[in-house]
Amino acid sequence: MNRKLILSILIITVIVLPLIGEEMNSQITSELTSKLEAIETVKVGMDTLWVMIAAFLVFFMNLGFAMVESGLCRAKNTVNILAKNFIVFAIASISFWIIGFGLMFGDGNLFAGLKGLFFVKGADNSPAVADAYSGVYSALNWTGVPLFAKFFFQLVFAGTAATIVSGAVAERIKFHAFIIFAAVLVGIMYPITGHWIWGGGWLARLGFFDFAGSTVVHSVGGWAALAGVILLGARSGKYSTDGTPKPIMGHNMSMVTLGGLVLWFGWFGFNPGSTMSVGDGSVIAHVAVTTNTAAAASIISATVSSWIFQKKPDLSMIINGALAGLVAITAPCAFVSVGSAAIIGLIAGFFAVIAVFTWDKLKIDDPVGALSVHLVNGIFGTLAIGLFAEDGITGTATGNGLFFGGGLKLLGIQALGTGAVAVFTFAGAFILWLILKIIIGIRVSKDEELKGLDLGEHGGEAYSGFQILN
Amino acid sequence: MNRKLILSILIITVIVLPLIGEEMNSQITSELTSKLEAIETVKVGMDTLWVMIAAFLVFFMNLGFAMVESGLCRAKNTVNILAKNFIVFAIASISFWIIGFGLMFGDGNLFAGLKGLFFVKGADNSPAVADAYSGVYSALNWTGVPLFAKFFFQLVFAGTAATIVSGAVAERIKFHAFIIFAAVLVGIMYPITGHWIWGGGWLARLGFFDFAGSTVVHSVGGWAALAGVILLGARSGKYSTDGTPKPIMGHNMSMVTLGGLVLWFGWFGFNPGSTMSVGDGSVIAHVAVTTNTAAAASIISATVSSWIFQKKPDLSMIINGALAGLVAITAPCAFVSVGSAAIIGLIAGFFAVIAVFTWDKLKIDDPVGALSVHLVNGIFGTLAIGLFAEDGITGTATGNGLFFGGGLKLLGIQALGTGAVAVFTFAGAFILWLILKIIIGIRVSKDEELKGLDLGEHGGEAYSGFQILN
Amino acid sequence: MNRKLILSILIITVIVLPLIGEEMNSQITSELTSKLEAIETVKVGMDTLWVMIAAFLVFFMNLGFAMVESGLCRAKNTVNILAKNFIVFAIASISFWIIGFGLMFGDGNLFAGLKGLFFVKGADNSPAVADAYSGVYSALNWTGVPLFAKFFFQLVFAGTAATIVSGAVAERIKFHAFIIFAAVLVGIMYPITGHWIWGGGWLARLGFFDFAGSTVVHSVGGWAALAGVILLGARSGKYSTDGTPKPIMGHNMSMVTLGGLVLWFGWFGFNPGSTMSVGDGSVIAHVAVTTNTAAAASIISATVSSWIFQKKPDLSMIINGALAGLVAITAPCAFVSVGSAAIIGLIAGFFAVIAVFTWDKLKIDDPVGALSVHLVNGIFGTLAIGLFAEDGITGTATGNGLFFGGGLKLLGIQALGTGAVAVFTFAGAFILWLILKIIIGIRVSKDEELKGLDLGEHGGEAYSGFQILN
Repeated sequence: MNRKLILSILIITVIVLPLIGEEMNSQITSELTSKLEAIETVKVGMDTLWVMIAAFLVFFMNLGFAMVESGLCRAKNTVNILAKNFIVFAIASISFWIIGFGLMFGDGNLFAGLKGLFFVKGADNSPAVADAYSGVYSALNWTGVPLFAKFFFQLVFAGTAATIVSGAVAERIKFHAFIIFAAVLVGIMYPITGHWIWGGGWLARLGFFDFAGSTVVHSVGGWAALAGVILLGARSGKYSTDGTPKPIMGHNMSMVTLGGLVLWFGWFGFNPGSTMSVGDGSVIAHVAVTTNTAAAASIISATVSSWIFQKKPDLSMIINGALAGLVAITAPCAFVSVGSAAIIGLIAGFFAVIAVFTWDKLKIDDPVGALSVHLVNGIFGTLAIGLFAEDGITGTATGNGLFFGGGLKLLGIQALGTGAVAVFTFAGAFILWLILKIIIGIRVSKDEELKGLDLGEHGGEAYSGFQILN
Repeated sequence: MNRKLILSILIITVIVLPLIGEEMNSQITSELTSKLEAIETVKVGMDTLWVMIAAFLVFFMNLGFAMVESGLCRAKNTVNILAKNFIVFAIASISFWIIGFGLMFGDGNLFAGLKGLFFVKGADNSPAVADAYSGVYSALNWTGVPLFAKFFFQLVFAGTAATIVSGAVAERIKFHAFIIFAAVLVGIMYPITGHWIWGGGWLARLGFFDFAGSTVVHSVGGWAALAGVILLGARSGKYSTDGTPKPIMGHNMSMVTLGGLVLWFGWFGFNPGSTMSVGDGSVIAHVAVTTNTAAAASIISATVSSWIFQKKPDLSMIINGALAGLVAITAPCAFVSVGSAAIIGLIAGFFAVIAVFTWDKLKIDDPVGALSVHLVNGIFGTLAIGLFAEDGITGTATGNGLFFGGGLKLLGIQALGTGAVAVFTFAGAFILWLILKIIIGIRVSKDEELKGLDLGEHGGEAYSGFQILN
Repeated sequence: MNRKLILSILIITVIVLPLIGEEMNSQITSELTSKLEAIETVKVGMDTLWVMIAAFLVFFMNLGFAMVESGLCRAKNTVNILAKNFIVFAIASISFWIIGFGLMFGDGNLFAGLKGLFFVKGADNSPAVADAYSGVYSALNWTGVPLFAKFFFQLVFAGTAATIVSGAVAERIKFHAFIIFAAVLVGIMYPITGHWIWGGGWLARLGFFDFAGSTVVHSVGGWAALAGVILLGARSGKYSTDGTPKPIMGHNMSMVTLGGLVLWFGWFGFNPGSTMSVGDGSVIAHVAVTTNTAAAASIISATVSSWIFQKKPDLSMIINGALAGLVAITAPCAFVSVGSAAIIGLIAGFFAVIAVFTWDKLKIDDPVGALSVHLVNGIFGTLAIGLFAEDGITGTATGNGLFFGGGLKLLGIQALGTGAVAVFTFAGAFILWLILKIIIGIRVSKDEELKGLDLGEHGGEAYSGFQILN
């Protein structure tokens, strides 16, 4: 080959081809980029769809709580309990919108959010994630959905915490005292401990885990309820002068069962929904199965426990058993195996039954078993991560729990977090209830309690036309 | 360089390279096209999934209506109301399939669909959209889902309109008269006004907006109900001879509360589902938050209003307050801010309470408050677009409402549409009820009304074995 | 042109260009591959989302069954029925996890799964599909979702079969006998016939079709119930000495209606969910519409039948009519047109009504109509494929049914499968009930039956405080 030939090849190869290649590449790259954006939009859309649907399911749990709580109380207090449960989500919606969301997820210090506090109005470029995120709600920048999807999902969780309180204080609380308490709980107290754990606060930094809220939601609701129950005192006639508890039967077990199944259904939004993204769906499927298995196992152990301790399997124990298992698996659902979930459930069902008797011995009068379900098993579920966690089982690096060779470290942090939230929430709630007690009173009159809160607080009855005995 | 070299470069560059480039491009383009199709299929699948799930939620509202309506009436009429609510969706399903969908969405003139009228059998190449669409249901060519998904979503909406009527005429309507009315309402009347607004008819052309149906569904149901209520007259004993209304209490407030929460839950299909596509999910999230916020605000204002006017917060007012807010936000949910939604809700709750007293003064006897909820707030919600709309807030060019500097234009069009639908539906329903009254009678006998429609119309009672007082 | 020029062009074209092209191609191919993977992940995620949401809806049917069954029985047995329905899903969850899923879907022979039997622990590389699948649950390798999604979806179906039994044996069965029966049914019997049809067994190989389980779930539940009903005998007082049936009215038709609507709602998970993938959503939409249309048509024919035979439209007949249509369309929902679905529904509603009278003539006492709904229409629905199938109507090659020119072949196979499942399940269930009867007894004492199973089995009553007559 001669020089000219080589030169011509060189020129074409070095100058002409790259120019053409670049042109082609840029064409193709722009096409690829637009495809990539199309995929990204579909992905964001799908994640948002999931977050919203899960939120709808959690919203629906309001029905479950309303039916379980009213069904387990007496007919004469039904309207009051239903009204409390209905309005509490309205209060929560407004309260969490005005201030709660900002306090919980706004950028701030280790103890509370300080930016974007009011009306979810902070800067935010969601659905951008991670480093691409620029805004004041950084603690939620790991999920690529619009800000209102994040807000709505967190709102329905916040509403749950307040609803838990409702059951424990039933049949003697003043309607407006409860409303005020709920507004402050959802607007201020819940968001603060929530910030510690889900808002990038000090417990999050320490390595405390709570996947869907055994502590953030359930034990917080439980502690707030316990403070109220102590300050309210037991219902008239619940304990005889020698302290023997007198059973006060629920007036409608059909409603209680309905409520229990609605809650179980809603929990498939609560736990699997806490992924807040879909990915290939495998974490959602894992969490749904651990959640359901814990509930099933807990029902079985609660039924057996009730059969042993009460001679016959009591339906309210069976239903509370289901809820106990669901509460207990809420924190660890994404961090443990299905087998561990079954064991957690078995323990939770047993705890739920013995807790009912224990509270009664302490003369802590909880008409619906909310403390046994949400407080006891909220604590247990949070600690269960320290026992049963398997590092990375669905991708999260939790480290191993005690039973899987991880030693006491994780368990210690879980215990610390549980204790810190307990102290803050119980103390805060106690003070708040006390202030309410002093200023407006929290307990209805003895006469109103006897006649029923429906007539006293609402001027109506739940079952007009039915012959009611007591 | 010599001529030959230049020539060789030219030949390669101009002839050979483009051929090769074309080949490469066509390979890559075909690969990109197949990717694009894969993305497109996933997108269509996701949109369809959303439309179907939203439709399931709206279907579920049938339960809400059944429970609210039967619970607010007396035990002796429960079976009748439940049967009406159960069968009405069956009637709607068949009626809308046979003719309603075609009349509403078939290509036609400004007043009704004329093509593809029967059995959803018209030509249609969905999920193709916009210019790619060729078929006779052009009014729905903006959403890229299969025809049956469009049909099913619209069907569950149509069913809602008929169910609204059911409550207002309860406790005195003849079972078969109601069935015939519902069949005509869903098959003919609802689709005609629906065509005007959602089917590309004259109101759509004018720039009338109704995102999820405050007018298309709720006020249409309300007007049809009002005509029936006027022709039926009040229930025996509802008004004393001097016109004083006597309260007739609902027999089961647990069911009413359940129904209210189920409706609220279902509304998350009704409003956000009316996007009929997912996109990046931001419109869905926005609409869910405006919807929920309006409901919450409306509960609070209804509770306060009831507390003021009735001295105590009445549970049925609280629940109807929630529904009022939901109806009112249905039209504007995608066109207003969350703050505006809160204000709309506050107004709706107040309207719901005072409307109940107003109907009673007019001796319009509506046992369940359907007129206060669906008619009054259906109208208000439609007009609220003219007041609170913010142009393009979620992408739709509505123009601004009065309060956002848009002047009276939008409000005027909204008022015109509301009025036109009112005249058509009220007149049509009045004539239809009148014909039924003349031919088969619409009201049960006084004796049957006294003993209850359950025994008279169905030969059974709802609560066999319970001691019932009246 | 001279030789050199030609040579230089050749060299560049043949040697240099391909090299560069290859480099470019490989760059682009790798980018395309990553896009493809991104699309694939989104697709898998979307399919999983659908399977899980559908499963949640099917889970929710537990509430529907609990309310329909308890509502149609007497108040004194309500707690017992609710407890049975609540615990049966817990039992199913554990039993199907331990062994059922493996028996049904594990690779094995024509009659049962043999690999991956216990605790869903078999090898599995889901969501890989078809040839890419390597694992022991090959029968489910057509759906690209994670193993736990498959398991959970199948679990909620298995739970349904056991729940069907619950209603038919109500008001006289011993609590623990039922629990043991349910555990074996879900763990062993249901999975074996399920393997024949959905697990790659002999009926699948023969070309037997059952899209969502008219036979796999409903008639299996029905046959198991029938065996129990025969061995249990009728409720005390149900038939007079001359054989005349005495109607025993349900105690709460509000609950029955609620249950019916919840079941209908849940069926939108049951049938459309059985696609187990989304694709472009068109099969889901088709199945939802056939399902809903059959239910609607069945309600209408059941109402008319009841009106004719019983003089007045009975609410329980209307509701069971809906369920009958839903059961009947379950097998053929994806294989027939909407018009055929309407005809299937019309027939199903008629069958449901006359079946109720027929069982009573045979002194087969089924308190809730479970046999008329699930057994009769499970059989009818399965055979309906042989009559109404249209080959490939939603993509599946079923061949045509008799009415669409397919002759008797498909009908014959459907009949054979129906019969084989009937013989196996009825015989198996009969033996199991018989063993239980001999060892622990299956029927409560006459005294307990009279006083109610609530006090006898559970030591509590459902409506404490209400005046109850019987």
